[in-house]
Amino acid sequence: MNFNMKDAIEVLERTPQTLTYFLTGLSDGWLHCNEGEETWNAIEVVEHLIEGEKNNWIQRLELIISDDSHKTFPPYDRFAHLNNNTEVALEQQLQEFNTLRSQNISKLKSLIDPEKRLELSGTHPVFGSVKLREVISTWVAHDLTHIAQIVRVMAKRYTKDVGPWIEYLSILKKREPK
Amino acid sequence: MNFNMKDAIEVLERTPQTLTYFLTGLSDGWLHCNEGEETWNAIEVVEHLIEGEKNNWIQRLELIISDDSHKTFPPYDRFAHLNNNTEVALEQQLQEFNTLRSQNISKLKSLIDPEKRLELSGTHPVFGSVKLREVISTWVAHDLTHIAQIVRVMAKRYTKDVGPWIEYLSILKKREPK
Repeated sequence: MNFNMKDAIEVLERTPQTLTYFLTGLSDGWLHCNEGEETWNAIEVVEHLIEGEKNNWIQRLELIISDDSHKTFPPYDRFAHLNNNTEVALEQQLQEFNTLRSQNISKLKSLIDPEKRLELSGTHPVFGSVKLREVISTWVAHDLTHIAQIVRVMAKRYTKDVGPWIEYLSILKKREPK
Repeated sequence: MNFNMKDAIEVLERTPQTLTYFLTGLSDGWLHCNEGEETWNAIEVVEHLIEGEKNNWIQRLELIISDDSHKTFPPYDRFAHLNNNTEVALEQQLQEFNTLRSQNISKLKSLIDPEKRLELSGTHPVFGSVKLREVISTWVAHDLTHIAQIVRVMAKRYTKDVGPWIEYLSILKKREPK
C-alpha cells in the first residue's frame, strides 16, 4: 500500500491551483477542443471536478464514519455536470473549485483519524464493500486522471500540426474513455 | 491546421510555472515513483524538458531561418539527461526550466515573423523535410505529453490503493512509452 494521508492531501490541495494557473487566460481554441463526440473539453472536466466536491467524496467519507447502520453510498451521476445549462465563466468555476476543495480538505482533516478509521468501510452500489482509505486514494487518483485528460485533449488539438513527429508522441494516437 | 503562434506561446509560457506549482514541496514518494524499469519519474521528466530548452527547440528554429545551406538538424539525444550525475534540488531545476523557457520564448518571438517564416523548412535526421510551424507545434505537444506523463506516473502509484475503482480509472491500467 502506498497510501498515506499526508501524501494524499499534498495532491488534493495542489489540483485546483494547478488547473487555475494552467487554464486561466487560455484561448477558446484550447478550452473548447475535445476528443470527438461525447468527450469532454477542459471546461467540462473542471465542472465534473466541482460536482465531485459538492456531491461525492466528502459525502461518502461522512457516511462511512457515521453511525448509520446502512452505509450504502447513494448513486452518483458522473455526468451530472453536463445537464448544467448555466453559463459560468471558467475563472469563476476555478474559483469555486478552489473554495470547495479547500473546505473539503479541512473536513477531511477533521473527520479522519488516520490511526483508527482508514479501515472502516461503506458499500458502493456497484463494487460492494470499500474501505475509507480506498475512497481517499480514489479521490487523489481521480484528480490526477482528470488533469492528465485535460492535457491530453489539448495535445490532440495539434495531432496534424506536428507533422511527422506524431511518431514520437504516442499521446496523440489514442482515443481514451472519459 | 490548428496552429497559430499566439495559442502556441500560451502553452509554452504556462508549462514551467504549472509544473513548479504542482511539484514543489511534494513528498519523495510522489517525485521518485515511476512506471517500472527504464521509465522516468517526475524529476527525470523535468530534466528532459530542461535538456530540450538547452539543446533542441531553439537551435532547430534558428537553423531553419539561418542562411545555412545545409539545414539538417544535428542529432538530438532524448535520453541525454539520464547521464547527468550531478544531484540538483528539484526546486533549482524548476527554476532553471522557468528561466530557460522564458529566454527561449523571447527568442521565438524575435525570430519568427508569423506571416513569412512558418512555412520555411529544415531537415530532420529521420523524418526529412519539416516545416518551422511543425517544430513549434511539436514543442507545444511535447510539453503537454510530458505534463500528462508526470501526472499519469503519479496516478499509477495508487493503482492498488484505489481498490475496485481501478475499473473506472483507465489511466491506471496502461503502460505507455516514455
